[in-house]
Parts: sequence; C-alpha cells; structure tokens
Amino acid sequence: MESVLIKKLYRETDKFLGKEVKISGWIRTIRSSNKFGFIEVNDGSFFKNLQVVFDEKLENFKEITKYSISSTISVEGEVVKTEGAKQPFEIHAKKVTLEGKSHSDYPLQKKRHTFEYLRTIAHLRPRSNAFSAVFRVRSIAAYAVHKFFQEQGFVYVHTPIITGSDAEGAGEMFRVTTLDLENPPRDEKGNIDYKKDFFGRQTNLTVSGQLEAEIYALAFRNVYTFGPTFRAENSNTSRHASEFWMIEPEMAFAELDDYLEVAEAMVKYIINYVRENAPEEMEFFNKFVDKGLFERLDNVVNSDFGRITYTEAVELLKKSGEKFDYPVEWGIDLQTEHERYLTEKIFNKPVFVTDYPKDIKAFYMRLNDDGKTVAAADLLVPGVGEIIGGSQREERIDVLEKRMEELGLNKEDYWWYLELRKYGETKHSGYGLGFERMIMYLTGMSNIRDVIPFPRTPGNAEF
Amino acid sequence: MESVLIKKLYRETDKFLGKEVKISGWIRTIRSSNKFGFIEVNDGSFFKNLQVVFDEKLENFKEITKYSISSTISVEGEVVKTEGAKQPFEIHAKKVTLEGKSHSDYPLQKKRHTFEYLRTIAHLRPRSNAFSAVFRVRSIAAYAVHKFFQEQGFVYVHTPIITGSDAEGAGEMFRVTTLDLENPPRDEKGNIDYKKDFFGRQTNLTVSGQLEAEIYALAFRNVYTFGPTFRAENSNTSRHASEFWMIEPEMAFAELDDYLEVAEAMVKYIINYVRENAPEEMEFFNKFVDKGLFERLDNVVNSDFGRITYTEAVELLKKSGEKFDYPVEWGIDLQTEHERYLTEKIFNKPVFVTDYPKDIKAFYMRLNDDGKTVAAADLLVPGVGEIIGGSQREERIDVLEKRMEELGLNKEDYWWYLELRKYGETKHSGYGLGFERMIMYLTGMSNIRDVIPFPRTPGNAEF
Repeated sequence: MESVLIKKLYRETDKFLGKEVKISGWIRTIRSSNKFGFIEVNDGSFFKNLQVVFDEKLENFKEITKYSISSTISVEGEVVKTEGAKQPFEIHAKKVTLEGKSHSDYPLQKKRHTFEYLRTIAHLRPRSNAFSAVFRVRSIAAYAVHKFFQEQGFVYVHTPIITGSDAEGAGEMFRVTTLDLENPPRDEKGNIDYKKDFFGRQTNLTVSGQLEAEIYALAFRNVYTFGPTFRAENSNTSRHASEFWMIEPEMAFAELDDYLEVAEAMVKYIINYVRENAPEEMEFFNKFVDKGLFERLDNVVNSDFGRITYTEAVELLKKSGEKFDYPVEWGIDLQTEHERYLTEKIFNKPVFVTDYPKDIKAFYMRLNDDGKTVAAADLLVPGVGEIIGGSQREERIDVLEKRMEELGLNKEDYWWYLELRKYGETKHSGYGLGFERMIMYLTGMSNIRDVIPFPRTPGNAEF
Repeated sequence: MESVLIKKLYRETDKFLGKEVKISGWIRTIRSSNKFGFIEVNDGSFFKNLQVVFDEKLENFKEITKYSISSTISVEGEVVKTEGAKQPFEIHAKKVTLEGKSHSDYPLQKKRHTFEYLRTIAHLRPRSNAFSAVFRVRSIAAYAVHKFFQEQGFVYVHTPIITGSDAEGAGEMFRVTTLDLENPPRDEKGNIDYKKDFFGRQTNLTVSGQLEAEIYALAFRNVYTFGPTFRAENSNTSRHASEFWMIEPEMAFAELDDYLEVAEAMVKYIINYVRENAPEEMEFFNKFVDKGLFERLDNVVNSDFGRITYTEAVELLKKSGEKFDYPVEWGIDLQTEHERYLTEKIFNKPVFVTDYPKDIKAFYMRLNDDGKTVAAADLLVPGVGEIIGGSQREERIDVLEKRMEELGLNKEDYWWYLELRKYGETKHSGYGLGFERMIMYLTGMSNIRDVIPFPRTPGNAEF
C-alpha cells in the first residue's frame, strides 16, 4: 500500500479519493464513543491535520480509544470525500497501529497556551499550531533569501563567527576563550596572558560580517552573508536577542540607489515567495495573530517604497505637531516613535530614510559632498520600524583614514580593510537585514523569542 | 549604452557580437606596446577574464598603459569575435576610464603564489584564480544543499550556536562569557560564580545541532540544519578547523536505510548541481588541482554506493594481507588508512560502513538486536575517507536511559531529550555532513584552510 505524506493528500486530493493509503504521524486530538472515534493526525509534512475515522469493526478498537495525545501511529484506510465538513476529506481506517506510545501528561493538550508558557517547553512548542506555522515560514523565508540572491548571481559567503576584530564597534561582544578561568595564565605584569589563549589573542563572537563581506564583494562583485551574529547587551525587549541571524549583501560598483533597489526587490520577493509557499500558515497568522497582516503585506508588495532624506524627515516630524517623547532636532538619532510616525502616518508604506548626519553613523559610511551627511539609508516599515540599515561604503582611502583619525580608531587594526581601498578604490554598497525582524514582520508575531527556535537572551540559554 | 556583466557576455556571446557595450571591473593583467595594449579584466561575475584591446587612438592611451594591476576601470567598446585565440571574443575599446586606482605593490601579480602565502592575504586571495573558483563553488554547493532539501519539503532549522549543554560530548568546547576575566565574581566557596555570567550559567559554542534538530524532526518530520559548529581541539591537520559549517538532516519515521538513501541522493545532487552551474571552475580544478577529479566525481555519480557492515569490513581488512599502522581487530575505531583501503582498494567507490560496535559510538545511537552493535553508518569516499556520519537514533526510552546510565551521563542534563521519547517514541534517523570536507572532495583542494574564507585554527583568528 502506498505510504503518503499528508501534504500530498491535501495538494492532490482528487488523485487519492476512493483509494487506500497508509499514513504515519502523531495524534493531535482523539475522541470516541462506544462505536466509533475520530483522530486528528499530524505527520509534520503539513500545517493541517488529517481526520481519521475509526470504528468498532477494528479488532483493537478499545485500545485505540485509549491512545494518548502525541502517540505515534500509522493508519491504513480509504480516502473519502467529506461534504460540508471543515476538512475536505478524511480517512476511514482499516487498520490503526501504535508505533510509539506517549504519556498522558503530555503538556500540549487541546486547550490554548500562552506564548510565554510555550517558551519554557521549546522542545515541544514546534508541535503547536502557532509555532508549526512560525518555523515553517522561517524555513521558507530563509530559502527565499538564498533563491533571490543566487538567481542573480550573488555569491554566498560564510564570514567568520569567531573574530579578533570588533567590526564597527557595533555592540557589546561575547568573549570566546579556552583559558582556565579559575587560574588563567598571566604575563610578567600580572595581566591575563591572551597570547596563551586558543587563538593567541583575545577573540569574540562577531557582531556583523560586513567588513569581511566587503572583501568578497571586491572579488565577486555581488555577495551576501546569511549567518548568526551576536550582541552581549543586557536589553530585555521584545525586539532584541543575544543571538540572531543576519543577511548582509554587499555589492561592488553599486551606489546608494542600487542598494535601495535591491533591498526593495528582496523584501517583496520574500513576501511573495512565503505567501505562495505557505498559504495555510499565512492564513493562520492573518486570522489568529494579526488581523491586519494581509492588508499590510499587500500594501508593501504593491507600493513603490518611499524615499526621503533625513533632513526632510526631520522637517516633516517637526511640522507634524505630534508630541514625541524624544524631541526632534537635526542631528538626533531617530527613535522608534519617529520612525513609526514617518512610515505609518506620513507615508503609510515602507520608506527609506537617506543621508543621515555622519556623527550618528558608522565610520565606514561614505561622506556626502556636503561634508555633514553620509550616504546611508534605513528602511522603515509600518508596524515595526527599522528592518534594514545600510550605506554606500567609503571607498576613498584618504577620506576613510581621515574619518578613522577623527574617531580615534587604530588604523593598524584595520590594515586589511584599508588595503581593500589601496588596491582598487572601488565604489560599493551594502546593507543588513535582521532575519528575525523580517519573520516578525511576515507573521505578525510580536516577540523575537517566538520566531527563533531556541532564543538566547540575558539569563536564558536553555536547550 | 548597455552595462553588461562579463558572465552574460560569455553565456550569450552571439547576442552581443558587433554591439557596443559597457563593462566595469578590475585589471588582472595589462601589457602594451607603443601603439596598442591588452587588458584582462575581471568583473567578479565570472571565473574568466575579458580581454580588452586598446590603442593609441584613445586620447588617454599613455595613461592607460600605466594603470596598475587591480585598478578599477570601466570600458566602452565593441564586442568582436576572435578566431583561433584563447578567448572566443574581445572588446575593442572606444573609451577606458579609471574608476579607482591601485598601488603598484599589489601582491597578486601574475606570477604564481603558494596557497600558504595566499592564506596570509585572505583579504585578497578570493581575487586569485584558484580561490575565485573555490569560493564560487562553495556558494553554489551551499545553495545545492538548500535546494535539495527544500524541494523535498525539509524544514531548515537554525539550531543555537551558544549552548548550555555539550551535545554528545563530541569534542572540546569554546567557553562563551562576558565575565570580567581579570576579576571574575566569586561564590562563597571562592569559585567563579557563573550565575553572574550573561546567561546565568556556563555556556559554550555548539559542537553539533543534532539534538536540537531531533526536536524539530519530531514536529516537522524532515528537517535539516546548516550552520557553523566549533571544536576547541589543538589539532593542526589539513582536515581540521576550529570553526566549520555542518549540515545535519534529521528525519522522523526513518530507519537507518532511509538515511543512507537520502545521503546518497544528496551527495549525487550536490555534485551534479555544481558541475552544471560552475563548469569553468570545475574544469580549472580538474586541470590544475587534481587531474583525477572528474573521473572520481563521475564514478560517484554513476555508481550505487556500496554497503558493508563493520563486522564484514573488519574481516575483509584482516584478510587483505595489507600492512596497516594500526592493527585491525573487531572493536577498534577504523582509522583513515583502513577507511581509505576499503573505499579505494576494495570498493573503488563510496561505501557506507554500518552497524558499528556500540562502545565506539555515541550514546544516542540505536542499539541493534545483537546487543553489541548500533544502527550507525559512516560514508567513506575515495581520496578523502569519511565525509558523513550518522545513525538511527535510540527512540526507546528505557533502552536510552539504560545506555546513559552505563556511560555515567546525567539524565537531568538531558531532560528535554528524554521527553522527546516520553511523548511519542518515534523512530528517527539523521546524519552530519562536514561542509568543508564536501568542498575539498568536490574541488580536490587538500587543505581545509583553503576552502573556508577565513579559517580559524589554533593560533589563528586573523581577519
């Protein structure tokens, strides 16, 4: 008898109607009377369950009625069309076999659980509806990212996780070490001797692969990274995690506008790909998690993203008459309240804010001719705020060195970064997308802990 | 005028012959006489260079002849067919513009460099022929992995990098900490107080995502990981790195044979995909790096992988009459010399060795009915030895607990791993592929440091 996945039964129902098939999966719900019963089976291949009907004609009928939720079973039976029922078809069982038993104290009983509780059972939560949807969408979105870039000839680069440099000084870093911390080796001055550490120096977990991605862009033209990055910041918010995945494309021969075009196309591509390939999951989010989701995503896909300079944005915010917690003046870093006002109230669609004051941006961003602003841009989206940040990079070695001196950066630490300029001075641009932010945006889930399989936050590294 | 990538000119030459185009890229070589000159330009989009011919009719002819290697230029000119030359076409320049200059001490001059030297300039080596080929192949192979699994409905899982557990005790781990190492907090006994560390406990870098992948397989049926893993082992060999990428598929309702089938199909898929999508790069490897490469890869793709039990393999090795450095007896861990003899001399193709003694394998591998061996299998390939290791997992909670007791493992540390069995006891299997080993196998490159963009090895974390 043909073993078949439940996804296939749903996608090609007509082919199977009236046929006998074999399925295997886990019991999600079970109820029965004296004469017959219903089991909802999920086999992992599909968001939806399959309804199995069994009756007293089965020799093990009594036993079946006692199977616990989460038991592993296989079922042989006929695929039968159902009229007017919730599900379009069901299986009339000829044989139900217990493949593996479950205990009756299984925590995911039918009643609803809070996301907070489900975080404490991260080993079981992917079996719940919400997290089954989240993590399949996460997988499909990750593939969409690869597909988008690979189809355009971008080279995927694995930038290092353990690093001796601190990139852009973008954030607090985790130390990586094999020293015996109870009794570390000391130098003649009595300080810890990191020359004796595993790598012969102090090393940390990367906060960004950008600088290394620039190396590869200046060889392969168009490249992207997609890997884990880290922040050792003690911030307990719904939008920050200590370990998260980033996508960092970097493009040679590209100016700021080129980055904006690629980023806009990428966001739209990911949304379209996920809607096409996870329609049931997306329906679930739109119905149960964020009722405005489809409207918001449609708006993104169908609109041309807005563009506004930082200077214009500051003017608009000042003229808006809105009371902000943080007053707006040229030179401030825009806060989430400002970003959301811009994208939700003024534009009502995604908007790129460009040309920020150099003093609130990183040293490697390309100085504009005005001497005050840099060719940077952030993408703000309704409901979330910033999801992408990027810039044209300073390729002019004299301008870059001057900027590093102003900021007191040690040029020797960046010897190879400067050599990239010394040998070519090629224009290039790039950006970073926080993958979890994108998943939150795609699903309407409001806490970053609920879109990463095993979240790492201050005080939390279970599983 | 149409700006075009060199890859497109090569792939669709006929479309461009006689037309004027604009290209931009970097000077790889330049030579000239008083009247004309040749520039080999690479624009990053393609393995091969484009030949540009320029002559004294250009007003900046003299300047062009002085451009340094690695300068950034743009060229406008006509695409002209070349007869009998190395390259099928060239550009006759109407205009050559210097977009960014390079210094004359650029280290990658035309002469050949050793791979050892190129490792010291990891920021420039992707511009060399060999590394341009390696890292494009690496990107394409990574995509092939995703494509293979996604097309079959596998869910991609991001398992955690920072972990509080030590997985299978598979190797030495790197400590991750934010404690002030010069002056760490101490508990009342005077020991370092890890409760005050960032995560409130001791944490390390993961050595494997397998245990967490099992969580997801028992929800989504078929899943895979693809991410960085770490070993803090002080081994300076050509096959070991401290940071490397692993692919770990995990499949519910799968027995050992199912893993073997998926792994064989995956290896063949990756080889075929890379040969199709990087033909020039693969030609380069076959010609300059490993003259037997194509023969070896063809043999893999066209053969059914062999299968042999460990017990049978030991018999064959003993009967072979071969002198091994490590004598062969039932119960020993097979050494590389044994593995290579099996795959190269006995089978002359890839071979799965199955059913190893339980004492040389991990606690989670499923015990066979003989009580002595486990349902494990390693894939050995000619020229390399082991590239895949995996097993059916012990799903029977009583057998698993007994094995953990035998090995002195603390069951509380594995509470969630045991609960996966408590709630379902589902058969499942999985395996791990070291991505760098696969790239070495695909390219013939013989040192792992030359297939990772920025290798981390003992004493080495530059860039």
